Amino acid sequence: MTALEAIRSRISANKFDTGKPLSQHEVRELVEYAVEAPSSFNQQNWRFVAVTRKEAKERLKAVSFNQQKVADAAVTFIVLGDLKGYERMPEALAPSVKAGLITQKDSDAWTGMAAGMYAEARMARDEAVRSGSLAAMTLMLAAAAKGLASGPMIGFDPDGVRREFKIPERYLPVLLLPVGHAAPGNWPRKPRLPAGDVLRFDSGEGL
Amino acid sequence: MTALEAIRSRISANKFDTGKPLSQHEVRELVEYAVEAPSSFNQQNWRFVAVTRKEAKERLKAVSFNQQKVADAAVTFIVLGDLKGYERMPEALAPSVKAGLITQKDSDAWTGMAAGMYAEARMARDEAVRSGSLAAMTLMLAAAAKGLASGPMIGFDPDGVRREFKIPERYLPVLLLPVGHAAPGNWPRKPRLPAGDVLRFDSGEGL
Repeated sequence: MTALEAIRSRISANKFDTGKPLSQHEVRELVEYAVEAPSSFNQQNWRFVAVTRKEAKERLKAVSFNQQKVADAAVTFIVLGDLKGYERMPEALAPSVKAGLITQKDSDAWTGMAAGMYAEARMARDEAVRSGSLAAMTLMLAAAAKGLASGPMIGFDPDGVRREFKIPERYLPVLLLPVGHAAPGNWPRKPRLPAGDVLRFDSGEGL
Repeated sequence: MTALEAIRSRISANKFDTGKPLSQHEVRELVEYAVEAPSSFNQQNWRFVAVTRKEAKERLKAVSFNQQKVADAAVTFIVLGDLKGYERMPEALAPSVKAGLITQKDSDAWTGMAAGMYAEARMARDEAVRSGSLAAMTLMLAAAAKGLASGPMIGFDPDGVRREFKIPERYLPVLLLPVGHAAPGNWPRKPRLPAGDVLRFDSGEGL
């Protein structure tokens, strides 16, 4: 499937085929695509909990306003953003240092810059949401390319998700992302506002 | 280009060919792909200011720590998230009502639910960042599919951007996104942490 077809044909699914699980290998492969997204300083401050076991899905459903898709999808990813991503930049950048793309001195300097930028809690939270969302969008399009459906959700209780899935305090749940084979009965693609309504050239006046 | 190739080959570019502009039609087409991203309640709370004129690019560069790519890229999108997206849901959902996908009553009910959810400023800001990021990622992959490079940036002065580009108060600048033809000298793709480092199954313990 071409990238442009994947973008045009993706829908947000609510109905998943409960008879078609995904293997751990398939779930891991989706994450391998997700992490190709960009992140500030390449800090890769996203994390993923793949909820696949029946019992775990039921617990996730209970803290997601009982939305059935969480239980029906082959996997629901809890997409997390690290509120302290800068602390782990040396680790995130180590492969770039090893590959000779940047020096250890660059890695140290970037980490210092990031520590300054993200000292403000609001900046850190914005970055967690931004990075988690960029990765989630990439995952959704990779899923579409593999013939899978996805249904991003923000309707859940973040504290309940943290508690039920032992999410460390440093991570913000950015969204939930059920992925699996579609069942019949999903919405068709929902129409969008025309580009003219959301785009201006060289000034935001009148937006 | 297949979707998976676009995801795997995309890089964050700093060097753009200054001799290859994009037409307004091409810029608009990129936005038409961007808005295929999902948003909560299909509220489409993203907006785009396409900075294309030489004089405007220089003003944007001045409030972006003088990063040259802003001036060199054919277009730099100021990607905005509407902090009051729910107020415009009736307008955003009108095409879905017209197409018979949802009723006017659904549209009214969703708008009411959203007004409740986004009354909290932090929820509204998270949603602005999330929607803007989902759209930006889609735009980057559409650009890659069209043989264009992009280089997402968070290094800018949001107040300066607002002032210089007359961005109404209701919008949050989520990121800047230079897009154009690549020039030589860009980074190769930067390596990522292996999936095993960022993915857990059924529990976030130990992440």
